[in-house]
Amino acid sequence: MPQRLDARDPSFPHAFARLLAAKREVSEDVDQAVRAIIDEVVARGDEALIDYTNRFDNLALTAGTLRIGDDEIDAAEGECSPDELAALTLAKARIETYHRAQRPEDHMTTDALGVTLGWRWTAIESVGLYVPGGRASYPSSVLMNAVPAKVAGVPRIAMVVPTPRGETNPLVLAAARLAGVDEIFRIGGAQAIAALAFGTSSVQPVAKIVGPGNAYVAAAKRRVFGQVGIDMIAGPSEVLILADRHANPDWIAADLLAQAEHDPVAQAILVTDDAALADAVEAAVQRQLQTLPKAEIAGASWRDYGAIILVETLDAAIPLVDRLAPEHLEIETANADELCAKVRNAGAIFLGSHTPEAIGDYVGGPNHVLPTARSARFSSGLGVLDFMKRTSILKCDADSLRALGPAAIALGRSEGLEGHARSVAIRLNM
Amino acid sequence: MPQRLDARDPSFPHAFARLLAAKREVSEDVDQAVRAIIDEVVARGDEALIDYTNRFDNLALTAGTLRIGDDEIDAAEGECSPDELAALTLAKARIETYHRAQRPEDHMTTDALGVTLGWRWTAIESVGLYVPGGRASYPSSVLMNAVPAKVAGVPRIAMVVPTPRGETNPLVLAAARLAGVDEIFRIGGAQAIAALAFGTSSVQPVAKIVGPGNAYVAAAKRRVFGQVGIDMIAGPSEVLILADRHANPDWIAADLLAQAEHDPVAQAILVTDDAALADAVEAAVQRQLQTLPKAEIAGASWRDYGAIILVETLDAAIPLVDRLAPEHLEIETANADELCAKVRNAGAIFLGSHTPEAIGDYVGGPNHVLPTARSARFSSGLGVLDFMKRTSILKCDADSLRALGPAAIALGRSEGLEGHARSVAIRLNM
Repeated sequence: MPQRLDARDPSFPHAFARLLAAKREVSEDVDQAVRAIIDEVVARGDEALIDYTNRFDNLALTAGTLRIGDDEIDAAEGECSPDELAALTLAKARIETYHRAQRPEDHMTTDALGVTLGWRWTAIESVGLYVPGGRASYPSSVLMNAVPAKVAGVPRIAMVVPTPRGETNPLVLAAARLAGVDEIFRIGGAQAIAALAFGTSSVQPVAKIVGPGNAYVAAAKRRVFGQVGIDMIAGPSEVLILADRHANPDWIAADLLAQAEHDPVAQAILVTDDAALADAVEAAVQRQLQTLPKAEIAGASWRDYGAIILVETLDAAIPLVDRLAPEHLEIETANADELCAKVRNAGAIFLGSHTPEAIGDYVGGPNHVLPTARSARFSSGLGVLDFMKRTSILKCDADSLRALGPAAIALGRSEGLEGHARSVAIRLNM
Repeated sequence: MPQRLDARDPSFPHAFARLLAAKREVSEDVDQAVRAIIDEVVARGDEALIDYTNRFDNLALTAGTLRIGDDEIDAAEGECSPDELAALTLAKARIETYHRAQRPEDHMTTDALGVTLGWRWTAIESVGLYVPGGRASYPSSVLMNAVPAKVAGVPRIAMVVPTPRGETNPLVLAAARLAGVDEIFRIGGAQAIAALAFGTSSVQPVAKIVGPGNAYVAAAKRRVFGQVGIDMIAGPSEVLILADRHANPDWIAADLLAQAEHDPVAQAILVTDDAALADAVEAAVQRQLQTLPKAEIAGASWRDYGAIILVETLDAAIPLVDRLAPEHLEIETANADELCAKVRNAGAIFLGSHTPEAIGDYVGGPNHVLPTARSARFSSGLGVLDFMKRTSILKCDADSLRALGPAAIALGRSEGLEGHARSVAIRLNM
């Protein structure tokens, strides 16, 4: 049974604070191992990649077979069903359209003093995309990471994906081609992150690495940060569903379980002002669990981290939502738009009863790489801006320097930076 | 003498690679100390803050005096000269105007299928601003960090600044008030970062912490990341000046020294196609060093990390600029605009001979918090977007769910996520 909280209960503030503070992640201490792997790749390049792939993925490679060839991708596409390829194509088109609208504009202006100033956005020159192997190898994640990079104008996208015992996921390769990935290497783990960050004979280094991975991959990304950019380190997934008496309990239950089936430490929370709905949802979850293939995972998540929170009014739920700052927020109430406008902290919002979160995972258009673990308080989902950077531009002429110079000189001297002051003064013969 | 590189030299690629790889930062291992300080603040709150401030800043505080009062800020303003206050006011106005243009737009649209989708930007609910004490306590940095937060609409900005032996920097307090900082606490170091991240009786926690600091502050920021957001960890400052025979060697020398005076590990590089200019600049640097108050620091930086690179043509300099990805790039050439358009990687660009970088440090308008250590390859200077986050919004109706649903079901099943597929199918009676 998931925990039940009642906002009218005197112990609620304490119980809610405990829910907020609950750690769902055990951080494995793999940092020493990861450091050694990175050092080896820096020192021995391709040879180290080949050794580690042999050891960890049971796969014998040569420098010539590190990269996956076009013929293999052709063959992989051939293995996908037409339905799957059509779904992937629809998803790609919708993700692309959504993200195109995110392309930022440059800005240049000349002000009254004659100072020309503004900024320019440029694409990051090269991006590495990590794709996990095995179970968590999701073609949808390939699209969600690669399409925004492509829309940003990144000239080179290199993907790495481990292929244990040589097994590839055909739909992952098809998604990579569809998204415009330029190079694919059959390597994974910390060694793949090291290759992307520092380069080897076969793998040219990139400027930024994105994509999810296991504890080794996360630790390697943290370690190479600075040498290259990285995206956020994603934690276990979560959903918060805000629903009223108009909601269909079977649908709500299905959405909670869709989240819970990801991971035993995923979190699904229902917040409602209707005790009858809460009971009905709880019963529906138990019923639907009977036939769910991933019942064991989903059941554990629901039991250990699930929660049902009763509130007096839906408005009273908003501060709770903001404090939880959920990765995914479904609002299935009569006044969904109105409540939506009041929320500050959420990674993505799904409005109304016909928008199950799974639509957003695949074909809605918005990105499914979203801030977890309450980080929606201060960060955003993946987007085009993550693959671009802004350069500010400033240009004075003699007159505008004369107008601004004295203030710069005054502040430079206030800060004890006489050299700063002089670099201005020398141009003004001061 | 700084090192001289000549791009026509056969050994140049090797020498340039060495320049790129040079580490200018020694990372102090303060992580264990920082961890202990954070744990103490979490456990003992205000009491721990008071103890550490006593020990590290030689200052006896009580819970009642942790915060700097309005009367003290009034008094501080009274200590500033009218010139300084006027310069600060001009700087604030220009920074505000520049950053206002960065406010992002929300985007909502309904597509041909009837799906309503887009995103919404919201300000981060509370931000903490770290301001170093002593020498590096810069009023300009207060403006550069607080003004964009204010422009973003952050409802609460809390500042921390150590005041060793009770000494405050009046202009820092004046800048804080001018920028709209809501609360100022006289605490610093890892203990101040811990207070902002976790809260104490006197310091309400914030959602994101920005601002520069020493090794303890940087380590504390890294450690609390996740609990709160943080900005980039700034490294030593650097400038690259691209100049041709039209440039004034005395002005170039002054700009190189303005950078070098920051820190013995700051870096100032001149790239030119004119050997005579290179010689003249080198001589001018030596001359100007004679009278520079911070000659010792600037001289050490120029000797140990300075460089002059001769190139055959200015165009040939562009790939070198992109690889160095300088924090500050001055282009003082006849065709400055043209060269500017070709650069991909730079934090900020200063165009023409009347735009010394120091103008950008204070009163230009663009932000002076910029990516260092080659991170301009993948990141941007501080801006309004750093104080906001984007929430994606998606809304299907029954018809659009019917149109998109089958593709989502197909992809969910391909990924082995039957629960995802069912959350869609249940709504379509499939």
